[in-house]
Amino acid sequence: VAEVKKIGVFDSGLGGLTVLKTLQRELPGCSFVYLGDTARTPYGSKSGSTVVRYSVECATFLARHDIDLLVVACNTASSVALEEIARVVSCPVIGTIAPAVRECLSHQEREGGLVGILGTRATIQSAAYQRAIHSANPAIALSAQPCPLFVPLVEEGITSGPIVEKIVEFYLRPLREEGVSSLILGCTHYPLLLGPIRDFMGNHIAIVECADAIAREIQSSHDIPLDRGGTSRFFVTDEVSRFNSLASTFLQGALVEAIKVDSLGS
Amino acid sequence: VAEVKKIGVFDSGLGGLTVLKTLQRELPGCSFVYLGDTARTPYGSKSGSTVVRYSVECATFLARHDIDLLVVACNTASSVALEEIARVVSCPVIGTIAPAVRECLSHQEREGGLVGILGTRATIQSAAYQRAIHSANPAIALSAQPCPLFVPLVEEGITSGPIVEKIVEFYLRPLREEGVSSLILGCTHYPLLLGPIRDFMGNHIAIVECADAIAREIQSSHDIPLDRGGTSRFFVTDEVSRFNSLASTFLQGALVEAIKVDSLGS
Repeated sequence: VAEVKKIGVFDSGLGGLTVLKTLQRELPGCSFVYLGDTARTPYGSKSGSTVVRYSVECATFLARHDIDLLVVACNTASSVALEEIARVVSCPVIGTIAPAVRECLSHQEREGGLVGILGTRATIQSAAYQRAIHSANPAIALSAQPCPLFVPLVEEGITSGPIVEKIVEFYLRPLREEGVSSLILGCTHYPLLLGPIRDFMGNHIAIVECADAIAREIQSSHDIPLDRGGTSRFFVTDEVSRFNSLASTFLQGALVEAIKVDSLGS
Repeated sequence: VAEVKKIGVFDSGLGGLTVLKTLQRELPGCSFVYLGDTARTPYGSKSGSTVVRYSVECATFLARHDIDLLVVACNTASSVALEEIARVVSCPVIGTIAPAVRECLSHQEREGGLVGILGTRATIQSAAYQRAIHSANPAIALSAQPCPLFVPLVEEGITSGPIVEKIVEFYLRPLREEGVSSLILGCTHYPLLLGPIRDFMGNHIAIVECADAIAREIQSSHDIPLDRGGTSRFFVTDEVSRFNSLASTFLQGALVEAIKVDSLGS
């Protein structure tokens, strides 16, 4: 088992911070290098070929920082670009899909019932979640729902109130009517809408977040430093000011001072 | 007066098609080359320096197509990048701000009252509209409102119904309460929400759309071919399929077959 001291994490923008926050808490001995591609966000409404190109550029950038492991903290990139990313970096790569599916299946095996999947248009259209679940168990009934307005809501800091409630209802009513019993939040932005999603769907369903699943995956398959000396560095592709202020709020207290990267590629 | 036969038009994505549609109708003898930077859309939530870089790349691309005039059909780019764009192309450049302000002032001089400005966060923060109006008449009272969720709504094709009504109310209630008498739609996406905006604000206010103002500006200051033989070509930076289908619907009947440009720059 290889030791993992330094972990690269990237996302199209702010969403991956939900993953980073969990990893910082669960793996306090690890150091992190986070890249948010804020100049080209969002990925979820763009085509597969464009997301592959952007993701490979992000991975290549992080690979230059001596990382022992790369976490693709973006479901869209994990859905369409994981193979291409693994080809350009020499360390192990963990995406969001496999850990979240494992978590969901362990619940589904106990409780049964319909599995719901929420994600961006690109993630749902890629059918990456659907394929991963059905290759483990073809008998599981699935209902997949693209929620393209969730990312703009979160990026605008609108995570509660009547607009969010209307949009949550708009996307989730079919899943509630079908009676899903477990629900995968297949986008790293969506945990910021957990309250309204939980309120609408009810307390009886299991909600799977990628961040917890990724942390458990790393803990179970890698050697992790036992001290608590981990640090975090941040890079973004657009100006830093808005990212710093939103990220500092989101990471609760940790002052974020990101560095702007002028260009990741063509 | 120079003759204008071929006009370049660019926007961050689909929004500029509201301008193109009006120009095709009002200037049927002109040919158009449209560029939508769909791989990097939206511009309105990004920083000024990034929008300048992207806009200069779009303008440089269109300048290679022998255009006689460049229309910056994006309020965000017009607000922060017009000078830099004019520096890299040799033909005249028309943005959205000056024509819309002229139109608004002619109404305001007749009717008086408070002027409202709607736009992306980048457009409103740039204060380009506010400066242009106050340099013409410092006594005019202004109320500027960023509406960052309007672009994602339009790009998702959600232009009516309860979600739109809630979001329109969320952004426009302060302007209605202040009693604005004319309202600039300072983003080329917003005309697609004209119905809900009109319903909420009432029929008594004047609504200024950039597209009409730009068409009048071109007609009044350039020599235009009198025949109706104009054609249109389309370029995008992301995959063409989604753009073609949304653009064909939007331009009502004209079959759009865009060409994908692999890269506009770094």
